[in-house]
Amino acid sequence: MRYNMLEKKVEDINIAYIGGGSKNWARVFMNDMALEKSLSGKVKLYDIDYESAILNEKIGNRISSLKEAEGKWEYEAVERIEDALIGADFVFISILPGNFQDMYRDVHYPEEIGIIQSVGDTVGLGGTTRAWRTVPLMKEIGKNIKNYSPDAWVINFTNPMTFCIKTLYEVFPKIKAYGCCHEVFGTQHLMIKALKEFENIEVAKIEDIKINVLGINHFTWITQATYQGIDLIPIYRRFAEKYLESGFLENEEHWMNNHFKSGERVKFDLFMKYGYPAAAGDRHLVEFLPNRWYLHNNLEWKFGLTKVNWRIENQKKLIEDTQLLAEGEKMIEIKKSGEDFVRQIKGILGMEDIVTNVNLPNVGQISNISRGVIVETNAYFTKDSVRAINAGDVPEELLMLMEPHLKLQKKIVEASLERDEEKLFKCYISDPQSMGSGREELRKIFISVLNKKS
Amino acid sequence: MRYNMLEKKVEDINIAYIGGGSKNWARVFMNDMALEKSLSGKVKLYDIDYESAILNEKIGNRISSLKEAEGKWEYEAVERIEDALIGADFVFISILPGNFQDMYRDVHYPEEIGIIQSVGDTVGLGGTTRAWRTVPLMKEIGKNIKNYSPDAWVINFTNPMTFCIKTLYEVFPKIKAYGCCHEVFGTQHLMIKALKEFENIEVAKIEDIKINVLGINHFTWITQATYQGIDLIPIYRRFAEKYLESGFLENEEHWMNNHFKSGERVKFDLFMKYGYPAAAGDRHLVEFLPNRWYLHNNLEWKFGLTKVNWRIENQKKLIEDTQLLAEGEKMIEIKKSGEDFVRQIKGILGMEDIVTNVNLPNVGQISNISRGVIVETNAYFTKDSVRAINAGDVPEELLMLMEPHLKLQKKIVEASLERDEEKLFKCYISDPQSMGSGREELRKIFISVLNKKS
Amino acid sequence: MRYNMLEKKVEDINIAYIGGGSKNWARVFMNDMALEKSLSGKVKLYDIDYESAILNEKIGNRISSLKEAEGKWEYEAVERIEDALIGADFVFISILPGNFQDMYRDVHYPEEIGIIQSVGDTVGLGGTTRAWRTVPLMKEIGKNIKNYSPDAWVINFTNPMTFCIKTLYEVFPKIKAYGCCHEVFGTQHLMIKALKEFENIEVAKIEDIKINVLGINHFTWITQATYQGIDLIPIYRRFAEKYLESGFLENEEHWMNNHFKSGERVKFDLFMKYGYPAAAGDRHLVEFLPNRWYLHNNLEWKFGLTKVNWRIENQKKLIEDTQLLAEGEKMIEIKKSGEDFVRQIKGILGMEDIVTNVNLPNVGQISNISRGVIVETNAYFTKDSVRAINAGDVPEELLMLMEPHLKLQKKIVEASLERDEEKLFKCYISDPQSMGSGREELRKIFISVLNKKS
Amino acid sequence: MRYNMLEKKVEDINIAYIGGGSKNWARVFMNDMALEKSLSGKVKLYDIDYESAILNEKIGNRISSLKEAEGKWEYEAVERIEDALIGADFVFISILPGNFQDMYRDVHYPEEIGIIQSVGDTVGLGGTTRAWRTVPLMKEIGKNIKNYSPDAWVINFTNPMTFCIKTLYEVFPKIKAYGCCHEVFGTQHLMIKALKEFENIEVAKIEDIKINVLGINHFTWITQATYQGIDLIPIYRRFAEKYLESGFLENEEHWMNNHFKSGERVKFDLFMKYGYPAAAGDRHLVEFLPNRWYLHNNLEWKFGLTKVNWRIENQKKLIEDTQLLAEGEKMIEIKKSGEDFVRQIKGILGMEDIVTNVNLPNVGQISNISRGVIVETNAYFTKDSVRAINAGDVPEELLMLMEPHLKLQKKIVEASLERDEEKLFKCYISDPQSMGSGREELRKIFISVLNKKS
Repeated sequence: MRYNMLEKKVEDINIAYIGGGSKNWARVFMNDMALEKSLSGKVKLYDIDYESAILNEKIGNRISSLKEAEGKWEYEAVERIEDALIGADFVFISILPGNFQDMYRDVHYPEEIGIIQSVGDTVGLGGTTRAWRTVPLMKEIGKNIKNYSPDAWVINFTNPMTFCIKTLYEVFPKIKAYGCCHEVFGTQHLMIKALKEFENIEVAKIEDIKINVLGINHFTWITQATYQGIDLIPIYRRFAEKYLESGFLENEEHWMNNHFKSGERVKFDLFMKYGYPAAAGDRHLVEFLPNRWYLHNNLEWKFGLTKVNWRIENQKKLIEDTQLLAEGEKMIEIKKSGEDFVRQIKGILGMEDIVTNVNLPNVGQISNISRGVIVETNAYFTKDSVRAINAGDVPEELLMLMEPHLKLQKKIVEASLERDEEKLFKCYISDPQSMGSGREELRKIFISVLNKKS
Repeated sequence: MRYNMLEKKVEDINIAYIGGGSKNWARVFMNDMALEKSLSGKVKLYDIDYESAILNEKIGNRISSLKEAEGKWEYEAVERIEDALIGADFVFISILPGNFQDMYRDVHYPEEIGIIQSVGDTVGLGGTTRAWRTVPLMKEIGKNIKNYSPDAWVINFTNPMTFCIKTLYEVFPKIKAYGCCHEVFGTQHLMIKALKEFENIEVAKIEDIKINVLGINHFTWITQATYQGIDLIPIYRRFAEKYLESGFLENEEHWMNNHFKSGERVKFDLFMKYGYPAAAGDRHLVEFLPNRWYLHNNLEWKFGLTKVNWRIENQKKLIEDTQLLAEGEKMIEIKKSGEDFVRQIKGILGMEDIVTNVNLPNVGQISNISRGVIVETNAYFTKDSVRAINAGDVPEELLMLMEPHLKLQKKIVEASLERDEEKLFKCYISDPQSMGSGREELRKIFISVLNKKS
Repeated sequence: MRYNMLEKKVEDINIAYIGGGSKNWARVFMNDMALEKSLSGKVKLYDIDYESAILNEKIGNRISSLKEAEGKWEYEAVERIEDALIGADFVFISILPGNFQDMYRDVHYPEEIGIIQSVGDTVGLGGTTRAWRTVPLMKEIGKNIKNYSPDAWVINFTNPMTFCIKTLYEVFPKIKAYGCCHEVFGTQHLMIKALKEFENIEVAKIEDIKINVLGINHFTWITQATYQGIDLIPIYRRFAEKYLESGFLENEEHWMNNHFKSGERVKFDLFMKYGYPAAAGDRHLVEFLPNRWYLHNNLEWKFGLTKVNWRIENQKKLIEDTQLLAEGEKMIEIKKSGEDFVRQIKGILGMEDIVTNVNLPNVGQISNISRGVIVETNAYFTKDSVRAINAGDVPEELLMLMEPHLKLQKKIVEASLERDEEKLFKCYISDPQSMGSGREELRKIFISVLNKKS
Repeated sequence: MRYNMLEKKVEDINIAYIGGGSKNWARVFMNDMALEKSLSGKVKLYDIDYESAILNEKIGNRISSLKEAEGKWEYEAVERIEDALIGADFVFISILPGNFQDMYRDVHYPEEIGIIQSVGDTVGLGGTTRAWRTVPLMKEIGKNIKNYSPDAWVINFTNPMTFCIKTLYEVFPKIKAYGCCHEVFGTQHLMIKALKEFENIEVAKIEDIKINVLGINHFTWITQATYQGIDLIPIYRRFAEKYLESGFLENEEHWMNNHFKSGERVKFDLFMKYGYPAAAGDRHLVEFLPNRWYLHNNLEWKFGLTKVNWRIENQKKLIEDTQLLAEGEKMIEIKKSGEDFVRQIKGILGMEDIVTNVNLPNVGQISNISRGVIVETNAYFTKDSVRAINAGDVPEELLMLMEPHLKLQKKIVEASLERDEEKLFKCYISDPQSMGSGREELRKIFISVLNKKS
């Protein structure tokens, strides 16, 4: 890494990309990096599927050669994780633990006993078994980072986020890791819409909506929101009241036709009941709550269920696409994503101080949650440091909703590290989603999913 | 109060009995006190139903005049609580908050949405609304104790125990109060049975079974149990294995015909799954758990449901009985109950050091539960002091079952003190018993019960 | 208060200035406010010495009428504190508790038993008795703020800082107050000097030196310091090594001739022994340590003792000066001070997010110090919020030095609120400065100082 | 180990005695064990000085053969520690770390810079360097226990007690160890004297004085003391007032002629100032406080200084004595000591429940001291368990005296385990005893003592 102070650039940055064979998120990464002119260097792509990493090497280098690419990066697929890690300044982790068949079991088997899941990757039945698969992989990655790049900054994008970060800190307590997730932006975006609708104010950038966010990943809440001198909570209230029944649909596309959309009715309903805007998609929020609150009736609440069959179909398209891009048979268009990681890198490099939300072990940033729990709040990024900003207390009634998950977080990681199926089962039946079912029927499903019975 | 060291007696003890019009527990009290020769003095009976207190005054003095009564006590009904409290050395609290109509609603209304309760006085729907009625009464009692007898020792027998003790300490943090409950003895009794069955050892007294007990009232567990040199856990295991399917029924009477009995199958099942003997009746244990674990199927699990109609019938008999006893038309027989309070009084008076289980705010006696939570563990009684004995950690998997209730304890007392119905509702839907139901159906039941709709 | 978004100004700001008769710091305030064009409004000056407030009203308005004054403020002396507080958006507190005769006793009486103090306003004998005088005043101010301006932002400049902030939060836990102190800047300034000397780099602004600062006011430490991409700790080490023996004196004026200067030898010595730059003047640092470490020998360690006689002389000059300025007989020159409060106000108004060091109750910003202790760390200022940034752990060996003071902080405030002289004495003898003396000789001095014996 | 329930005996108990070559304490042990008829078995004596262990083997077996010896024990010296530990039911640790030359340096070198020590084995200069020598030995013992007798009960008698227990739990967190010290009995004994003097009441046994004791070893305090129905604090107050100036000397022997005696003036003075009886000898109490409070003037405060030369002389006598006893040339007389360990063993064996004071890691028995700190309070002994009894809060003004030592406890053990001399020095200068001295003079002494310079 080399600082070029005169030109305000940092050159020769080394990035290890774990999961570098990705068909999806890798594209986002490559685009955003190409569009940032002050950074350049080398990206080493590591993946258990080496062939996919090689395809991405080709695509990445093709992108770098485009005229529009102002940040020049060299991509190289490597066969061993240590080849990626040694010398890395940054480590990106974005992997898919298991495959879509596993995910199919996670999400759809419990339907047999009436448990519906909208995403199935965070908490509840799906989150628990996905953690079971992911934690050992994160343990290996954490140990490798400890051995090969202990001083690197590690940015995780993998879900279940909380369990991933917890595991990394368990195996290497001095790791400089945090988790990055864009779910929060959705609510900031709604606030922009509300400002436009009720105050006719146009907001230029999402980060101009200043929020104090706190909670756990995918179940985060906003306790303060302002735009310049304006308090946004009353404006959001008007918005929530207006669209509480009808839902708010921004554009033509109906939420039913999109596996990631919703009419925001859950968010508005929670706001009316608890007084704080939730800062994640409805599909995620509902999974933290008992199944019969929203999940059993997604049509009424107007949020889509992300069927795994859709993922499977979509994956096929992405594979084809990757092939075409790698072989140059398809044109690459680069455009900026909504992701925040480029700003974060610049923050850590000391180029520009920023404040944004991240997942970190609690050291006090949330005052009424125990130390060590992985929480999501704002953090202050400056040269070689990412420091959580005190977000205050979780409002007590929200804490009641959050608490079962805070407790399970630690236990599920323990069970997964110890490979203790019985302990994992005890976690599983303590999830609010499970509490409407009998133990024996839960056990049956649990065993089928864990043991990959078809 | 006067120490007579020569004869090893304490005389002129003043006791305030709050709820002194009781038809039931007052009899237990009078009998046990009459049978203890080293104590004597005066008992002031206070009750919002003054007439009932007067009846008990008569019965009490009649008992004192019996030849078999070795401890002589003078009973006096008083009209105002301060008349009872001023000058009291001990305060006994044993009240019934609300009436059986209230209790009927608590227990049976939720059946409409499929929620079954076996007792309905501790946690879950019944415990929550009962707390709502009891907490304000306890607040008044606590304030009166602060004003009129701040140095008295206060022994509470009223349920819901946890909420009562929590409230007393909220309104008067320096109160010398604890809660006394006999539920633990049942498991000690089972251990005596097991010792007899497998080792042919006869145990003389229940307190010879030494246990380390920990948890919250009606959901307490044993982590160590010995008799002289013998570890009782392996013996209890044999016992649990033997009777796991059939249940253990001590004598002829079938559990179906008794509202307080059970075949202990729940206790054995929990022991097989968690490895520790639970120390409360099955009817209580099941209420701490999701409704579909045991409660939905009490016949299979062989425990009785305490129907409130039975209580109503029984109460009628007790009223008649009281009348007859007070008027001397029925003979009084005094015999020792299984209750422990006489030993406790002697401990506090410095006559005999004892160790027994009590409910107290946690100051560290349970290491992995927060300070201030009302917990049940052993305590050491010596002159003017009741000090909790460190009971260690709650085993982690049991803690997972206990935790929702630990959190709710504080919130329910807050909601009841603030008379905040919405907050109470948020507690109510967070109870494991409620988590299988939708919010709106719970709300309907909740409103009916709280607002005493018939 | 009115936002003028178009011109990026905030107008009609109301500021209450408690201690508004100041001869010294008020001038700094007026100057800096006049030089900031984006802010304007009214300042109400309250002081127990109303006459002095009137003089400042005149001076303030005179300044506002100058052509160079870009921020226009109207000054008004008020007779009652509520007249200042009602309607205030900001409250500035900068008072002198007691008088210089009191301070003379604080600082110089203990010399009789060999205890030397260099400032005597923070900890040790002087800090303790000064807290005794200040805490009741702060209690009154806090209560008035609670009653008259509970939503105002309160910025305290009064020493002893820690005790002032602690008291404000004791009497009004929801107060939006923090303490502002410039001592930290001195070490940032030394780092600029070191950068120039060893790397020939010129730094434009002090805030470009990014530091992570943590500790308690006047005993703060830096655990990370960077300038753009550069780690400043190794450079500071070279600097400390070079000037360890000789001291570092920036300009001609000798530390002996200036009551606020030092040769920085203490700071360099502490750095060599503990590995972290201290972020306060040597005169303050030494007072936290046993008397025989540095204080007994200030000549060798090259720091000045701030004699109170000098303060008394200086005060006379300031009084004359004030008179002349108020009457227009002396010209006013306005120039920017090094203070940071204008930036802070703009941060709170949402005009510009900043990060700077403040004194706040610990809610976790320092992980290994108890909650509620007043600590100094960086905070993030954004619209209507000042949130502490997690500063990590105090390095353990520094914590050993800090701990006696952390404990005393709470006790001294308690003793001062309860007016318990014996408790204050027990604090006093537990200060490291006192530990080389006998209790009885300390008691004699203590009584003389507290009871204002001449 | 074999329970003989019929005769109420436990036979074949195996005891490992680490430090079994002792010339002094071993005699106490042998006598007390011989006088207890319900226990018998085998004692394995391990000592780095094997020859001494052999002498004790002879003496022990000689004692066992006496007619008066009702508890029959077989003694055997062993050469390796594992020979003692394997199969042990109990492990006694009573060693002398280093030799009297070391102790001479500990105690007397600091006199050069005016620091006086009365015992020098607990805190201050002597305690710190003694910990430095002892901790590594305890680490080895702890590891051996972990390997060879993890289930044994471990009773430590070695000083510095706190550091020993801390180290054992550091290296083997599941160890069943506690520390046993008789210092507390002295104050109970004074209370017996006071009861006799003012109330003419004779107390039969020291344990009839019921106390609530809390603090750290050699700096423990009594917050409640009763005898049957009587509160002893007011009686102790009269006693302290009466003898405050003159001192209390029980029998003819003057404190000046006895290295372990005192006139109790320090205890009475502390009682008058803090309101609680201290429960350790004056010689120990003073060492926790700044040197100029009592230590600099022991003549006035009437306590003896335990000169190491006296220990050296005494040791010579003990060696001769041992030789004579081993060879049968001197008659053995067995009489009961005041030590409590036999009752404790019986408690752990389930023969008799007792309550007595022990040193254990804090798990909440002292509510306002951090978990993990080694504290001394009462504990409840029952079959296979020693459970601390909640002792409440340390009164806040006493806590101020205790706190520096609570912090140092952890750091000194860390420094000693890490063999980090610089860290140890930083502990050493933070001890209240050291705070009246300059760092450089302390460093000189410290280096001489640590490096055994003569």
